[in-house]
Amino acid sequence: MRTHYCGTLNTDQLDQTVSICGWAHRRRDHGGVIFIDLRDREGLAQVVCNPDQLEMFKVAESVRNEYVLRITGTVRRRPEGASNSNLVSGEIEILCQEIEVLNASITPPFQLDDENLSENVRLTHRVIDLRRPQMQKNLMLRYKVTRAFRNFLDSRGFIDIETPMLTKSTPEGARDYLVPSRVHPGEFFALPQSPQLFKQLLMVAGFDRYYQITKCFRDEDLRADRQPEFTQVDIETSFLNETQITALTEELIRTVFKEALAVDLPNPFPRMPYSEAMARFGSDKPDLRVTLELTEVTDVMKDVAFKVFAGVANSANGRIAAMRVPGGAAFTRGEIDEYTKFVSIYGAKGLAYIKVNDITQPNETGLQSPIVKNIHEAALKSVIERTGAQNGDLIFFGADKEKIVNDALGALRCKIGHEKGHVNGNAWEPLWVVDFPMFEYDEEGKRWNACHHPFTAPKDEHLALLESDPGKCLAKAYDLALNGSELGGGSVRIHKAEVQSQVFRALNIGDEEAQLKFGFLLDALQYGAPPHGGLAFGLDRIVTMMTGSESIRDVIAFPKTQRAQCLLTQAPSAVDERQLRDLHIRLRQQPTVEVVKE
Amino acid sequence: MRTHYCGTLNTDQLDQTVSICGWAHRRRDHGGVIFIDLRDREGLAQVVCNPDQLEMFKVAESVRNEYVLRITGTVRRRPEGASNSNLVSGEIEILCQEIEVLNASITPPFQLDDENLSENVRLTHRVIDLRRPQMQKNLMLRYKVTRAFRNFLDSRGFIDIETPMLTKSTPEGARDYLVPSRVHPGEFFALPQSPQLFKQLLMVAGFDRYYQITKCFRDEDLRADRQPEFTQVDIETSFLNETQITALTEELIRTVFKEALAVDLPNPFPRMPYSEAMARFGSDKPDLRVTLELTEVTDVMKDVAFKVFAGVANSANGRIAAMRVPGGAAFTRGEIDEYTKFVSIYGAKGLAYIKVNDITQPNETGLQSPIVKNIHEAALKSVIERTGAQNGDLIFFGADKEKIVNDALGALRCKIGHEKGHVNGNAWEPLWVVDFPMFEYDEEGKRWNACHHPFTAPKDEHLALLESDPGKCLAKAYDLALNGSELGGGSVRIHKAEVQSQVFRALNIGDEEAQLKFGFLLDALQYGAPPHGGLAFGLDRIVTMMTGSESIRDVIAFPKTQRAQCLLTQAPSAVDERQLRDLHIRLRQQPTVEVVKE
Repeated sequence: MRTHYCGTLNTDQLDQTVSICGWAHRRRDHGGVIFIDLRDREGLAQVVCNPDQLEMFKVAESVRNEYVLRITGTVRRRPEGASNSNLVSGEIEILCQEIEVLNASITPPFQLDDENLSENVRLTHRVIDLRRPQMQKNLMLRYKVTRAFRNFLDSRGFIDIETPMLTKSTPEGARDYLVPSRVHPGEFFALPQSPQLFKQLLMVAGFDRYYQITKCFRDEDLRADRQPEFTQVDIETSFLNETQITALTEELIRTVFKEALAVDLPNPFPRMPYSEAMARFGSDKPDLRVTLELTEVTDVMKDVAFKVFAGVANSANGRIAAMRVPGGAAFTRGEIDEYTKFVSIYGAKGLAYIKVNDITQPNETGLQSPIVKNIHEAALKSVIERTGAQNGDLIFFGADKEKIVNDALGALRCKIGHEKGHVNGNAWEPLWVVDFPMFEYDEEGKRWNACHHPFTAPKDEHLALLESDPGKCLAKAYDLALNGSELGGGSVRIHKAEVQSQVFRALNIGDEEAQLKFGFLLDALQYGAPPHGGLAFGLDRIVTMMTGSESIRDVIAFPKTQRAQCLLTQAPSAVDERQLRDLHIRLRQQPTVEVVKE
Repeated sequence: MRTHYCGTLNTDQLDQTVSICGWAHRRRDHGGVIFIDLRDREGLAQVVCNPDQLEMFKVAESVRNEYVLRITGTVRRRPEGASNSNLVSGEIEILCQEIEVLNASITPPFQLDDENLSENVRLTHRVIDLRRPQMQKNLMLRYKVTRAFRNFLDSRGFIDIETPMLTKSTPEGARDYLVPSRVHPGEFFALPQSPQLFKQLLMVAGFDRYYQITKCFRDEDLRADRQPEFTQVDIETSFLNETQITALTEELIRTVFKEALAVDLPNPFPRMPYSEAMARFGSDKPDLRVTLELTEVTDVMKDVAFKVFAGVANSANGRIAAMRVPGGAAFTRGEIDEYTKFVSIYGAKGLAYIKVNDITQPNETGLQSPIVKNIHEAALKSVIERTGAQNGDLIFFGADKEKIVNDALGALRCKIGHEKGHVNGNAWEPLWVVDFPMFEYDEEGKRWNACHHPFTAPKDEHLALLESDPGKCLAKAYDLALNGSELGGGSVRIHKAEVQSQVFRALNIGDEEAQLKFGFLLDALQYGAPPHGGLAFGLDRIVTMMTGSESIRDVIAFPKTQRAQCLLTQAPSAVDERQLRDLHIRLRQQPTVEVVKE
């Protein structure tokens, strides 16, 4: 039907007769001539329809936006001054000889170049929305990225193996999506939250190197950047240690960025222990583009008169951190109020600050702040010294439970950094965060939980800590952060049954419970499991960052809304009573409050 | 940890020190020396442990089957007469210097070379089962096949685009797997039976060429060769017609067979109309390796005395077909009884036959059969002539409703063909079956159903038949058969809204029903849908055939049983009451008859 894509035509085809197919992007009538910009996935080409060919011209006159056309004509150079350097085909036009309307279109619900569409309109008319050049580019880049992932992994001996979508529910972590079984009344499959256990089983089975680009499912309350189903680049390998796995996978990421975006990421990626990341940036995925840092000052506030600080400094899990903002003394009252409100989202009860007027006078004379009079000069001097503050700077303080301080100042750091230009100018800042703790203490449940998951191996030299001091036990776990987002993460797994038992004991998971939930993994560990480990990358997130999209929904062809609906197909929807009966389930009573659909 | 895979070592590494990791496949003690066959995914290597290195030897003595080992040693040529030509590494062995037990193993539930394992045992201990060289080969070939599919499609400008797993239930065709929504009480997602509508939407959106290797789901009663979840190579393209699509995709299949199996399939694939395939082979996916054929004899039996034949010949949808079996006169009574029983599976009430002794006497003298005396000589002569029977042949007859005759004789043809060697000797016989009817009549429901699906385009010249004579209307549909199995199939789709409406009318689907079920597709057709079409291949089936496996389950890492269970993880399983409450569903009463689990 066609000889070329519209968007690829150029002066190489001068004087040739070509056929192109596509959509009427725009039709203009100018001096008795009709111009049609014909669009296909590769771009636009300008078609000129002269009135001297009556038949053809009559057809051209009938063309409206989004009509599907087949056009045959001769490629010629555009007249002087009429070329368009934004288009590959910008120097040529097609002098139309034949035009065929392959399909008509009613008036589209919106113009493709309308930048002010609500997301609901876009998702309801997703098919039209997907015609927009930006969406075409996004999905094309997504494809290029997955191909780059595959090519690299293929070249390194990784095998793509499919794991089940209908699998077993393990009520841990996020909520499962459940699938009722028709054949086994009262029983359910679960959609996988990740292929974690299956990929470990594949290692025990001896496949050595596995990957899969696969859908995972979590029935979570949807935040801006989450989807009920998301795509994971899932990787596992045997006989490699932590260093080798991270080296291999950072080469993978470098290759993907190079191939898909022509971007050179640093080689090697910097590495930072979790403890340092939390201390300096209040985050386990710090945005290293931002040059602001947190400074520890808990120890110097133990004996100050300011009760809030002294109280926190003397409590068990309190932290006081200072964050110097160069030039911040110029912040207005309004700005500081806004920041104070911002940190309250993270549970901070306030946001103390000091404006630094004269560092040689670390007291009410040189420093401007309501709290200065209640902090003795030695402490203030330490703050100035440790933060390296200069005249004209501002120092913010977080003082609360460690987690609140880290969350609040960590977020404030990024906000101020990007808003006020405290950035280093690099476009991409990858960082391996390593040496994660094995466990975090759940204050409510009074128990230790796994930071990653219960199959993560502890550091060899920390094995004894599993029993004696779980909080100090570090894991062979690693996360890859990029510009403040987590690209992916993983760990070396436990391959010895007795270590797995020790970890379950630390997590207070009894033998029976372990057997019930993970029996098949524990079984497998007994039959010669090799040392193995791996990681998973979030594909949607990576492509969102690469395309500079605001939402993950802009890199997914048919996404769900934040209320987990597909506005295009109206899924989920009610089903026949007969279907429910087949599945041995019935509906509970509807809630009395009607849930309003988007 | 290692320098080479075990299975790849050869004389290129002579005298080199190598490190290998893997599983102790076998340990033999011979003349005071310990031999360990170390296994990894690439194969075996023989390791020799001499007692002169005491430490090392002590470790070697502790090794049992399936221990995970790391071995360092020197590659040397095996002694004269000790080489093994079945192995890549068969000419060398590794003289062990260091041996490290990376993990021990308890005694495996079965020997890896045990060929008599029940499938239940294999699926319960799937991890061990997957270690068997055949399973490793199967999954490796599956990977090679998917890679060959991707490489070809990538090279032809097809884009891999993901479509949703959580989508809308359309109660047509097979049963849906449903997923209750937590956010929208009383509503359900369905897992996709195929991405059919989404791929059409992607064409309307202008992506031009799409592919995806993706999971599909059907909650069917499981026959030997079905799985609740299966993998489809899904393809769609715009602006190509039937001929172009089949030409492109047969090149794809040729390339896949060449790359994965080094097999040359014919070029081009033969094509046959559906009507001819049914007439000659009783099947829309005929096995062309079998040389037997069906012959139409309905017309000559209208006035015979044999009531069964005359009745069928004069009924509306009856068919009488003859199948000549060269040399079949030698069949024993027992064999013929067995075949008669075999065709009864397909609903045939009997299996008439004639042994041909002397073709010059088409009567009770030359033909041997209980039915001959009731069939006049003219009819018998026609049978002999049309079938080309020779002395010593046997002719089977099917006489019943057309469908029963086709099913019964079609299956008998393959059975006798393969059992008695009536085959042409070709390993692979692909065939495009084309010109399918649009509709088939549902006797029970007294309505026309779509043969493919309701989005399949009718032949241009048959448009008028949609209303006047739907049964005669042919479709732009095509199936690719290989050796009697359907590899895949597809069609050119309807791209004009008014044709889609006509087809819905022929199917007796009202406007409201159409809007409710397929509204988003009908909508899309109004906004400039391009001419488009595609097809889908069943990946599991293709790999099953390529590996010569008996079951689709042998090419899936973690399959379900025929009762839709995963014996490894014990999915499906009961879930917490809290989970059900979250999903706004409850269980119906359990059936009083306990369902026995496998």
